Amino acid sequence: MRKFDINEDPHRRYNPLINEWVLVSPHRSKRPWQGQKEAVNTVALPEYDPECYLCAGNVRANGEVNPAYESSFVFENDFAALKQEPIDFGGNEEGSFFKAQPERGISRVVCFSPRHDLTLPEMDVDGIVNIIHTWQKEYTDLGNVDYINHVQIFENKGSVMGCSNPHPHGQIWAQSSLPTQVEKTQNNLKAYFEKNGTNLLQDYLKEELKVKERVVVENDHFAAIVPFWAIWPFETMIVSKRHITKITDFTEDEVAAFAVILKQLTTKYDNLFETSFPYSSGIHQAPTDGEEHPEWQFHMHFYPPLLRSASVKKFMVGYEMMGESQRDITPEKSAEMLRNLSEVHYKQK
Amino acid sequence: MRKFDINEDPHRRYNPLINEWVLVSPHRSKRPWQGQKEAVNTVALPEYDPECYLCAGNVRANGEVNPAYESSFVFENDFAALKQEPIDFGGNEEGSFFKAQPERGISRVVCFSPRHDLTLPEMDVDGIVNIIHTWQKEYTDLGNVDYINHVQIFENKGSVMGCSNPHPHGQIWAQSSLPTQVEKTQNNLKAYFEKNGTNLLQDYLKEELKVKERVVVENDHFAAIVPFWAIWPFETMIVSKRHITKITDFTEDEVAAFAVILKQLTTKYDNLFETSFPYSSGIHQAPTDGEEHPEWQFHMHFYPPLLRSASVKKFMVGYEMMGESQRDITPEKSAEMLRNLSEVHYKQK
Ligand SMILES: O=P(O)(O)O[C@H]1O[C@H](CO)[C@@H](O)[C@H](O)[C@H]1O
Ligand SMILES: O=P(O)(O)O[C@H]1O[C@H](CO)[C@@H](O)[C@H](O)[C@H]1O
Repeated sequence: MRKFDINEDPHRRYNPLINEWVLVSPHRSKRPWQGQKEAVNTVALPEYDPECYLCAGNVRANGEVNPAYESSFVFENDFAALKQEPIDFGGNEEGSFFKAQPERGISRVVCFSPRHDLTLPEMDVDGIVNIIHTWQKEYTDLGNVDYINHVQIFENKGSVMGCSNPHPHGQIWAQSSLPTQVEKTQNNLKAYFEKNGTNLLQDYLKEELKVKERVVVENDHFAAIVPFWAIWPFETMIVSKRHITKITDFTEDEVAAFAVILKQLTTKYDNLFETSFPYSSGIHQAPTDGEEHPEWQFHMHFYPPLLRSASVKKFMVGYEMMGESQRDITPEKSAEMLRNLSEVHYKQK
Repeated sequence: MRKFDINEDPHRRYNPLINEWVLVSPHRSKRPWQGQKEAVNTVALPEYDPECYLCAGNVRANGEVNPAYESSFVFENDFAALKQEPIDFGGNEEGSFFKAQPERGISRVVCFSPRHDLTLPEMDVDGIVNIIHTWQKEYTDLGNVDYINHVQIFENKGSVMGCSNPHPHGQIWAQSSLPTQVEKTQNNLKAYFEKNGTNLLQDYLKEELKVKERVVVENDHFAAIVPFWAIWPFETMIVSKRHITKITDFTEDEVAAFAVILKQLTTKYDNLFETSFPYSSGIHQAPTDGEEHPEWQFHMHFYPPLLRSASVKKFMVGYEMMGESQRDITPEKSAEMLRNLSEVHYKQK
């Protein structure tokens, strides 16, 4: 019988953050693709677009005028999924299958720059530092609202990720409850902390920094790695080297180092297929419920859909929806590809 | 304070099958959409396509020739994600974060019909009965393979769901382990069974059949409902009215009734936006590990991506990936729309 070769043989890998497995099929990466191709936008964008509702000085759908902002700019989402109004809830019938609860929250949009044509990798480090400061301020302000217990910072980049405006921006959805994925992560972090007295992600990162094979880029304060259990072909996670539970605990050195690694990682992403690389990214960190959360560790996920070119993405469909996430290329191979890419943006060459 | 109105106010609903919540934002369904639109294929397909590797008599990528099949036809997937070869596995280092295990399995493709241009709603009931018989045979045969403990039957329909060939077909991935989603479901079904001595989905279905508002279509043996906790805009689930753990326990009456409801549901789907409605569907049922599984209940999920037209889909992206699944239109409204649609296919009118 052949000995197990993780680079060649179909296998499953375990994700301790959410207690789920992923199916890895390395041999399948040579499969031809005749299916749907994504449109690739190669038209250069203007620095200012009079039609864009996020550009400085323009009018939004609700009639409000954006200020002449010069760095980042935050406003309430005009089509928020959550509402701030308190609701009188009678509760659910005991044992009922129709179990629901009203949910209060605040949704905001964070414009990253007045420049319509820039994205994170093309911004300078100072501009990114400014975004991080904005995230810190929002985490604090929203977290201080009495009924808000969780602040989800995220970005949908690219039309394939449901983003309907290329103007660089992210979103923040803050709410009363811990969202499902965050609660799952918290439960696993907590169980680990209670068992070992240490932080799961800090311990994991130490192992990754020893073996190096899944590290994409690192500096004194952060590392960007392709997690051992990544599900998306080029999924990555940025973790701080120091045990930090939330973004407001960053020193100014850490803010600067985080800005640098964000620029490096997203530049490598763009360079991979010489395209503005789509992804959803999001920060997982301690909830704002007023409790200490030593089990938490600040980290940022990047979930990019592309698989083998600017136009061919991975479809997480039938088997993945009914059964389990599945990937072809191994995390080690993806990390190697990303690691070997230049940190100079292809458009600047 | 206003009283909670589930039809108007943002809220979360609980899914007892997987122990997760979904965020529902009914007021958001009027949000304008300027983002990505999916290509809509309106070109009529030929009954036979000489270029199609699934049509009868044609040659596949590996050089094999398809037989001149007349109903359904099953073959091993030429680019299988799983392999049958047994692998010598040394095990993982105790406590290691790099936890992996080799996985054996068999992947098959099930052609639904020799007709290249038909899909489930356009086939006659006899043709669908034949597919169900094929699924029964495959569940039995694959389940009898000594190392196979789970048989996942599914279909990816439409290019937006990663399907690269419109010839009507589904897939079966059978493997040693219970896939993540199935294991989660089993754990919840089991806990319920141990606590109540009854089947979770049978008890749930009874409640749904009392209130009726989420029922799309039903007959003597099956009901198709939009689950109270559905995440996709037009997600549905077909459940048998009798407690059946697996497809091989169907009586012939049940096979016929299942064929009828499959045709009715998928016809309504096509009629909704007058398009060949994309979805991933899949059957959840008892594993083939040789044990009794009274906690299990046969059911079939349909996860369709479309939201408001043939070209605008729901994006499950940033917040959904980092936080929690989110929907705009309520399950009750979706069920009402589907229920009111004709059972005659729009192309036949
Ligand atoms: O096997 P196919 O049809 O080529 O591939 C499709 O279904 C598979 C199972 O859901 C997915 O893993 C692939 O991403 C998808 O493109
Ligand atoms: O709020 P947006 O950018 O219009 O919408 C986008 O992001 C949201 C949060 O991930 C999703 O719910 C939407 O499906 C997506 O299109």
